[in-house]
Amino acid sequence: MPDARPGEDRLSAWRGRADAALARALPDAEAEPQRLHRAMRHAVLLGGKRMRPLLVYASGALFDAAPETLDAPACAVELVHAYSLVHDDLPAMDDDALRRGQPTVHVAFDEATAILAGDALQSLAFAVLADAPAAADVRVALLRSLAEAAGVAGMCGGQALDIDATGRGERLSLAALERLHALKTGALIRAAVRMGALCGGADSDALAALDRYAQALGLAFQVRDDILDVEGDSQTLGKTAGKDAAQDKSTFPALIGLDASRARLDELAAVMDQALASFGERAQALRALGRLAIERDR
Amino acid sequence: MPDARPGEDRLSAWRGRADAALARALPDAEAEPQRLHRAMRHAVLLGGKRMRPLLVYASGALFDAAPETLDAPACAVELVHAYSLVHDDLPAMDDDALRRGQPTVHVAFDEATAILAGDALQSLAFAVLADAPAAADVRVALLRSLAEAAGVAGMCGGQALDIDATGRGERLSLAALERLHALKTGALIRAAVRMGALCGGADSDALAALDRYAQALGLAFQVRDDILDVEGDSQTLGKTAGKDAAQDKSTFPALIGLDASRARLDELAAVMDQALASFGERAQALRALGRLAIERDR
Repeated sequence: MPDARPGEDRLSAWRGRADAALARALPDAEAEPQRLHRAMRHAVLLGGKRMRPLLVYASGALFDAAPETLDAPACAVELVHAYSLVHDDLPAMDDDALRRGQPTVHVAFDEATAILAGDALQSLAFAVLADAPAAADVRVALLRSLAEAAGVAGMCGGQALDIDATGRGERLSLAALERLHALKTGALIRAAVRMGALCGGADSDALAALDRYAQALGLAFQVRDDILDVEGDSQTLGKTAGKDAAQDKSTFPALIGLDASRARLDELAAVMDQALASFGERAQALRALGRLAIERDR
Repeated sequence: MPDARPGEDRLSAWRGRADAALARALPDAEAEPQRLHRAMRHAVLLGGKRMRPLLVYASGALFDAAPETLDAPACAVELVHAYSLVHDDLPAMDDDALRRGQPTVHVAFDEATAILAGDALQSLAFAVLADAPAAADVRVALLRSLAEAAGVAGMCGGQALDIDATGRGERLSLAALERLHALKTGALIRAAVRMGALCGGADSDALAALDRYAQALGLAFQVRDDILDVEGDSQTLGKTAGKDAAQDKSTFPALIGLDASRARLDELAAVMDQALASFGERAQALRALGRLAIERDR
């Protein structure tokens, strides 16, 4: 029976499961090549909200998928997210020294190790999925979802659009900015929700409704990120605040202002509620994650 | 019926199949984000011996696997190989300006695009395998083989050992050098041979024999590479010759001398012959590829 008041307890338990699954999947810090293994563990284990793994568990729980069957996709999606942060932080990309309140991988180790650790984290994500305790056709569907979300039609494509826009020094249109984020962060969030549902044997109607939820959530997550970059301080954020404005990046507050950005968050919250309506009380955990994305202060 | 004299015709036909499959799998050069797509196509389509795809086709042909079923793994293994070259050539890694007689991706484009193109090529490899025209359990086995060969227990791990060794400026032992190459280049070559055989439904005895062949081939490939770096010229090689000595890298000629390196190649050729003996005439294409690895001049 689904838990009617999932609350923070349930999310905490899932976060613990994800952390444990990640620690198990990552290579041993004491084994050779140590420097690579330690860089990978640094990239993944030192903090992070685990939003994507939580979405996998919450989406799977909607269909009573056992948490043990969800550990592999929860872990895999976080490994892809973590690798993308390692590479985004590199000097040739965003050149960030601080992430989750810790030195970034190329600062704590070196640039070559950071490139390689990111590469190896991506491979590991697919290796973890290939060994998931699920039927072969489900595993193939999980692998396809993650590979497509990570690639040119998803995360990498979005990052390329971001680099192009930043390099040209032009303001994007609102539509172009939403498209950029739909790829850069949205695709992986959608994959997380989809993978949980696939493990639970969701039908195509349920997958479509959950995808509407996930699209709104992904965009809300980014709008909130942009607002926090204006309003937050670096210590709470665990990364450099005010960086978007300093780099003259296209952001929601820069394009439409802070008030309209907050109004957009309200609209997205309504889209999420509507998409989840048919699941009733069972979708409490997904609703809670939607609120977290919108209300978080880091 | 297998072709008793595969010769260059058969290899050429397979090379053509691989090139066509790669061109189809890669994103359109005219679609946005163009710069990323073009960098990916530059990395993959401008040359390359296609040794790994040829191994997939030759290994699959041993079990009469139809070439159409082998296109996906042939393509996927080459995408992983190509991504690794893009990242290895980066300034923070080997800092190479020339590859296959062409400017490397970070030179032809820029460093951020090169990092991202490599990342996207890796994702694409797994997406291609997820869509392979094979039974789900075969696809999972292909995905597992490639993901493990690409990661810390394979290519990335070997590259990390290489960076560690170069950074320390110490000569490696022969055993350590062989282990480094078994991971850095050997793992992907073994995966290529294994994936072809998996598509053909090979049994475990056949897989084991082919793995002995692939291990010897991988090592032979590297020994020959080291010899070419001493004997070859940059124009024939399509990359900078004499670079190993200039960087004081551990190589087979540096550790055991040129004559002993050539003798090692002869030993490895004998191991390959023995491993393939039970397959008789059907293994002609794999034998031809073994000879190519040992006798090539670029």
